[in-house]
Amino acid sequence: MKLNSNEINVLDKIFRVNLINSITGIKPANLIGTKSKKGLSNLAIFTSVFHMGSNPPLIGMLVRPDKDVRRHTLENIKNTGFYTINHVHESSIIKSHYTSAKFDPDESEFERCHFTEQYIDDFKAPFVKECTIKIGLKFQEEIPIHMNNTILVIGCIELLIVDKECIEENGYIDLEKAASVGVSGLNSYYSISKRMDLPYARVDDLPDYLSM
Amino acid sequence: MKLNSNEINVLDKIFRVNLINSITGIKPANLIGTKSKKGLSNLAIFTSVFHMGSNPPLIGMLVRPDKDVRRHTLENIKNTGFYTINHVHESSIIKSHYTSAKFDPDESEFERCHFTEQYIDDFKAPFVKECTIKIGLKFQEEIPIHMNNTILVIGCIELLIVDKECIEENGYIDLEKAASVGVSGLNSYYSISKRMDLPYARVDDLPDYLSM
Repeated sequence: MKLNSNEINVLDKIFRVNLINSITGIKPANLIGTKSKKGLSNLAIFTSVFHMGSNPPLIGMLVRPDKDVRRHTLENIKNTGFYTINHVHESSIIKSHYTSAKFDPDESEFERCHFTEQYIDDFKAPFVKECTIKIGLKFQEEIPIHMNNTILVIGCIELLIVDKECIEENGYIDLEKAASVGVSGLNSYYSISKRMDLPYARVDDLPDYLSM
Repeated sequence: MKLNSNEINVLDKIFRVNLINSITGIKPANLIGTKSKKGLSNLAIFTSVFHMGSNPPLIGMLVRPDKDVRRHTLENIKNTGFYTINHVHESSIIKSHYTSAKFDPDESEFERCHFTEQYIDDFKAPFVKECTIKIGLKFQEEIPIHMNNTILVIGCIELLIVDKECIEENGYIDLEKAASVGVSGLNSYYSISKRMDLPYARVDDLPDYLSM
């Protein structure tokens, strides 16, 4: 199936959104935990979290400010300066998904979706107790993307909690052991299985069939 | 395992890079195809491609300008205005990985890694013939991220090629059927399997156990 931009524009709206939402490939499923100025906790699933750099350890997240749930998340991040990223676990896909429902503004998605708020050391935002990989971040910067009115939120890692058995000797997290989940678009969930580890790619150490 | 920012800072350097590189969860594996002003093709694997919005259909990609291979990609994108994103297929993980080796500047990774350049309609950048999902993009904007000297490259979808059997009725791409690949960090490859499709999350249509 081949589509140019004119043909994409005239697709059925839902079909187009689903297609474009899933075209970049697999995305990570993460729960963002925050607290409002008034102390109400908030939990929202995001598929737009991405690695930005290791030194300093920065994580980016694209936020659409026109959606209710996500607006709470962004407001809370900016008001308190802190938030958590928690990997969706395979056993909690459904609960995690429903954090995106538009609950009343005075209800916490932690409670409504049966997750447990967890406070670690004196970190100011709530972690998700049920998750095996958790990151505490300090808000650094928001960069407005004028082309489509989205916002790139950048945070720096302040705290990491990872089940020891999920960390390999070299520091890599085994995402299969962690039972971390992938998403296509907004509604389609995938489990992930390790296929192979490869060495850093060097020209003087190519596999035989690529050597000339 | 719990680590605060001080403890993260003093980790062994490789261990730290691997840990931070894999902490956000699964990332998509994509091959970026470009052409230089002089007409030499370039192919490079990126794990930093992400969906930015459906209308207009925008895709973002984070580029580190200090790495040779990636600098070619960025130079070519800016000089020609066009590039392609091609999903890494499960059967081509190793070849795809080695596009990140630093070949001579006058060699094409298409040739060195045994991929076939494919030109579709009059689109100016090369697609990867062996890939089942291909996106042709027009460069829109680069946004410098001053915090860590990276660049967010934004492109708009001009052309889409997807195997028909990978597209579901509702427009979603079945990434398992497409045999698309996930990555953790830079070197650890995962295959992905569909677990479930969920409906759009509505408060008045919650699963029984979440209703109050």
